Amino acid sequence: MLREIANVVRGLSADAVEKANSGHPGLPIGCADIGALLYGEVMKYDPEKPDWPDRDRFVLSAGHGSMLLYSLLHLAGFNVSLDDLKNFRQLHSNTPGHPEYGYTDGVETTTGPLGQGFANAVGMAIAEKMLAARFNTEEDKIVDHYTYVLMGDGCMMEGVVAEAASLAGHLGLEKLIAIYDDNEISIEGSTELAFTEDVASRFKAYNWHVVEGVDGHDFDSLRKAIEEAKTVTDKPSLIVARTRIAYGAPTKEGTADAHGAPLGKEEIKGLKEKIGLPVDEEFYVSEGVKEFFAGRRKELKTLREEWEARFNRWAEKNPELKKEWDNAFELKLPADFREKVMNIDISSPIASRAASGVALNGIADLVHYLVGGSADLAPSTKTYLDKYGAIQKNDFSGRNFHFGVREHAMGSIVNGIMAHEGLRPFCATFLVFADYMRPAIRMAALMKLPVIFVFTHDSFYVGEDGPTHQPIEHVEALRIIPGLKVLRPADAEETKAAWVKAIENTEGPTVLILTRQNLPLIGEGDVLEGVGKGAYVVKASNNPDVVLMASGSEVSLALETAGILEGKGKACRVVSVPERNDFIAQGTEYIEELTGDFEQFKVVLEAGTASGWYRLLGKNYHVVSVETYGESGPAAEVAEYLGFTAEKVASDILDKLN
Amino acid sequence: MLREIANVVRGLSADAVEKANSGHPGLPIGCADIGALLYGEVMKYDPEKPDWPDRDRFVLSAGHGSMLLYSLLHLAGFNVSLDDLKNFRQLHSNTPGHPEYGYTDGVETTTGPLGQGFANAVGMAIAEKMLAARFNTEEDKIVDHYTYVLMGDGCMMEGVVAEAASLAGHLGLEKLIAIYDDNEISIEGSTELAFTEDVASRFKAYNWHVVEGVDGHDFDSLRKAIEEAKTVTDKPSLIVARTRIAYGAPTKEGTADAHGAPLGKEEIKGLKEKIGLPVDEEFYVSEGVKEFFAGRRKELKTLREEWEARFNRWAEKNPELKKEWDNAFELKLPADFREKVMNIDISSPIASRAASGVALNGIADLVHYLVGGSADLAPSTKTYLDKYGAIQKNDFSGRNFHFGVREHAMGSIVNGIMAHEGLRPFCATFLVFADYMRPAIRMAALMKLPVIFVFTHDSFYVGEDGPTHQPIEHVEALRIIPGLKVLRPADAEETKAAWVKAIENTEGPTVLILTRQNLPLIGEGDVLEGVGKGAYVVKASNNPDVVLMASGSEVSLALETAGILEGKGKACRVVSVPERNDFIAQGTEYIEELTGDFEQFKVVLEAGTASGWYRLLGKNYHVVSVETYGESGPAAEVAEYLGFTAEKVASDILDKLN
Repeated sequence: MLREIANVVRGLSADAVEKANSGHPGLPIGCADIGALLYGEVMKYDPEKPDWPDRDRFVLSAGHGSMLLYSLLHLAGFNVSLDDLKNFRQLHSNTPGHPEYGYTDGVETTTGPLGQGFANAVGMAIAEKMLAARFNTEEDKIVDHYTYVLMGDGCMMEGVVAEAASLAGHLGLEKLIAIYDDNEISIEGSTELAFTEDVASRFKAYNWHVVEGVDGHDFDSLRKAIEEAKTVTDKPSLIVARTRIAYGAPTKEGTADAHGAPLGKEEIKGLKEKIGLPVDEEFYVSEGVKEFFAGRRKELKTLREEWEARFNRWAEKNPELKKEWDNAFELKLPADFREKVMNIDISSPIASRAASGVALNGIADLVHYLVGGSADLAPSTKTYLDKYGAIQKNDFSGRNFHFGVREHAMGSIVNGIMAHEGLRPFCATFLVFADYMRPAIRMAALMKLPVIFVFTHDSFYVGEDGPTHQPIEHVEALRIIPGLKVLRPADAEETKAAWVKAIENTEGPTVLILTRQNLPLIGEGDVLEGVGKGAYVVKASNNPDVVLMASGSEVSLALETAGILEGKGKACRVVSVPERNDFIAQGTEYIEELTGDFEQFKVVLEAGTASGWYRLLGKNYHVVSVETYGESGPAAEVAEYLGFTAEKVASDILDKLN
Repeated sequence: MLREIANVVRGLSADAVEKANSGHPGLPIGCADIGALLYGEVMKYDPEKPDWPDRDRFVLSAGHGSMLLYSLLHLAGFNVSLDDLKNFRQLHSNTPGHPEYGYTDGVETTTGPLGQGFANAVGMAIAEKMLAARFNTEEDKIVDHYTYVLMGDGCMMEGVVAEAASLAGHLGLEKLIAIYDDNEISIEGSTELAFTEDVASRFKAYNWHVVEGVDGHDFDSLRKAIEEAKTVTDKPSLIVARTRIAYGAPTKEGTADAHGAPLGKEEIKGLKEKIGLPVDEEFYVSEGVKEFFAGRRKELKTLREEWEARFNRWAEKNPELKKEWDNAFELKLPADFREKVMNIDISSPIASRAASGVALNGIADLVHYLVGGSADLAPSTKTYLDKYGAIQKNDFSGRNFHFGVREHAMGSIVNGIMAHEGLRPFCATFLVFADYMRPAIRMAALMKLPVIFVFTHDSFYVGEDGPTHQPIEHVEALRIIPGLKVLRPADAEETKAAWVKAIENTEGPTVLILTRQNLPLIGEGDVLEGVGKGAYVVKASNNPDVVLMASGSEVSLALETAGILEGKGKACRVVSVPERNDFIAQGTEYIEELTGDFEQFKVVLEAGTASGWYRLLGKNYHVVSVETYGESGPAAEVAEYLGFTAEKVASDILDKLN
């Protein structure tokens, strides 16, 4: 039956790509046997309840092979109809070109950008271990599932996979089973062109268990490999499955041609003949396969119902744990959350990274499912949760990760933890290294995962480390990622409010941009409301000659500048803009209320590129920004060199006004 | 003597960090022995001629240990004075916080962002092999040097190192010798916290020769390892040197505390006592060390002069090769370069990626030192140089790289090739994956390396592959990187001009942004001049009701829209803006000449975020952009869904005008 399922998957995949005249038939046809075994025999899931918390996770890291997943989801009984398969890659269909999280039932994460899925799977496997450590009792194991990930040569070559695999080995994630579709083909041709490393040895070096010599088209061989992987209790497993891309296609099997273009009518006909599918029928599903999955659905439903019974028993016996579980899966907050956070005592002047550290540690006591870590920079990013332990092999009860110097994997892993559900992860590094993890940040935004990214050392005020460590374009580069909230608080109070906003934002990811250097308290205004709206007045003036706008550390510079200008008889209003996109989203009325009309003289101060700020300017303005690279030197000297002193700014403004 | 050199380096490094009250003493003190051996005995260089083409390259991938390099450069006689060391990390000193390429003699590449230096070194080793294949003759080996790279645990954990190491092993770069400072310490503490993989086995799996069990404080052990590495003729070598961070510091040796903060007076005193330096003298250099390096300089000068004699003999015997050499090292172009490129015949409509492929192949015949490749997407990015071979192990005469699916390493490797000099590299992938290599793109811009990045599939017009493959924020995210030229040509003619501009821009990196979909010819205007200025009029109107601005594929949409508007009696001017920053840099006069004054009704069309375009708008405008993610579907349908049809745009403009 598995063979029949696999062949039906081959037919569906070939037909769907052909009908769409777009897509990737090679992987679905090559990996159909692997998929049939997983969905037909190995995996635990229930199409009736795709969000069953203890389901096995399957991640198609090689996301271009989406028709493999859609075919299997259809056969298994998820909400993916035959019509959906016929609408593969059509606008707003249930079956987009790459699997999209939150779009199609049974899709555990968005994949396509190579390597992301694998690292997400590492995150899911970490989440499983952490939830097991938190919630399982001697009597009831309510968290006990595997994470499977299918990856190709492309994933294998990506650095993010190397980083995530090394960490997975370090943590001994024994319930992570990766299947490597070792088909020896890449887009440019044979993997001999660029990829001749010994993958199995590499993974052994990462402390993985590796099952080699597996025939990816032989169910016994695959089954034995998975069984072997499951017997390993201290390491993740990699199954190196030798496959043929487009297995069964008469002329394209084993060729790069089969990777990313429709096979063509003749080739499909030959394929169907070879594998015993009716040649003249498109989107064929045999009665046998339908019956098989009808039976399997019943078994799986029973499994799920047994789990639910176990869960209910556990819940009754462990009401406190059950409460924690509900809090975590529903991202609930204490009723007095805002007040408690805003009441945390932090004395200024203080760097916003340090204020953040205090706030975060306070929040950690209130939000038990909040976990996180940094890319080997915790002492600098101030993100260690001091009262709680570290997550390490054999102890997943802690709340602090040591991600190592692996920014990209860190981002993708927290995405995977969030997609798993049951925890709320944050991660941290220097802002300039946000570039290393940018693909993961984008995926969080695209998937609307409410992870929190903490980026410190946010400008040339970093000082001596010099231009490689001084962000210039980075804040702006984050602000333009759709769906990403980017908060740059101006003092300790705004930092607390920014954390409140980040934690309360469960609709997508949030970035906190924090300083290395100390900041004074800026004072005026309803901080929580102001941060909520994205901008607010921190120094009022009813009829200002100048309106100064800034975020983060430049707000205090703006206030200082305003002080000088007022000494020269110029009335000033200062607007703090901790979240510029939210501010713009308030609409023209609020923007004009704060910044004045078109003729109003406006000033923007930004210790980085000003690019997107021009939208908030009118006819008369002055911009203080950095459009080159920074310099190595003491921060105050760099600031002076770049023109970031109140005297210089005030004098330039006066020149323009007069 | 090597021991004495090493200890002097320790003293200088500790003193400099202490004086700056900032910096990283742990690595320079821990790796002083390695450095002393390299600069005192192993390496070939000449401080009198730091740009000697056949010098050995040394890359300090762990760039935070910059005082190691500065100390050695000072002792070796480069233009780094004792006063420079005393000004470590001071504004505009010769000794910035991290090594900066083009700033300090003897610094081969900018390092600091971990892993970049290692991948640069791979690029340098590739360049050496390629130049050897091109220029060495049976009689004269004029290219024959090693590339050494020193890397720490941080580099080792970064994905970019994994990618570059895999490719280096694949290519069998036997003259690349990496020394791994295996000190078991990371910022958060012991490497046991996050990094327990078997590095030696990993590198063996990459097809590297690995020398294990090397004592990083024992010159014989280190010397033997380097000699062994040099005997290997088909693989790069990794020397795993066990060291102690801050070796000799009485209480901080072997601790994370020594990594990134001054040791303190007492600790330095203890260190100096332990290693036999005068305790009361800062920045001490012994007479013995001075004399030693005076002698070494003479030997090295002789070596260099011998090479020059050999080079001159070779040049005389091989005038054609010599001409190619000069062209390559001076980035010379044929006198009629522009004309020849602009005369390349390309028929439209055509995708700009395809036009680029034609232009690039034409340019390859004119510019022999131009080499490049893609991250396993050559068939899609159209960047293969059809008449030329591929670079592979044992054959470096070709001009095409197969980088594999390793975007990040690809970027860093081309940076290394460019920093080596003698070749002009380009590289290519889909625009959306520019995120994967963003740190390398930034380094190219910071280092002013004239590499060329080709990014195709530049918007939602990608279609069926969906949001993971549809750039939204990417063009803008590149435009805001300081020093990066970002060209988005609108048709085949602009594409040729863009290539001319990219090749002629030897002051820094250039990005070409190209479409997947076909584009018509836009027609009017002096393309070469227009692309040169960043913007020009492609449809004139002396007294326009509407000025439309766009780049790339939206220029033809703007023209189509203008056609509809003119049918409704509205005079339209259309401005193509292939390089927005260059356009802005032309100044207000040119901008107003093209786009009108503040009251002029202006329209921007951008198939991505509009963020930075607002700077070019005045009081009255209409913006057509994408501020969310794309959709999977046929491109035309996605375009319609997102409002990118001339009818819709024209109708919205008319609504605003009336």
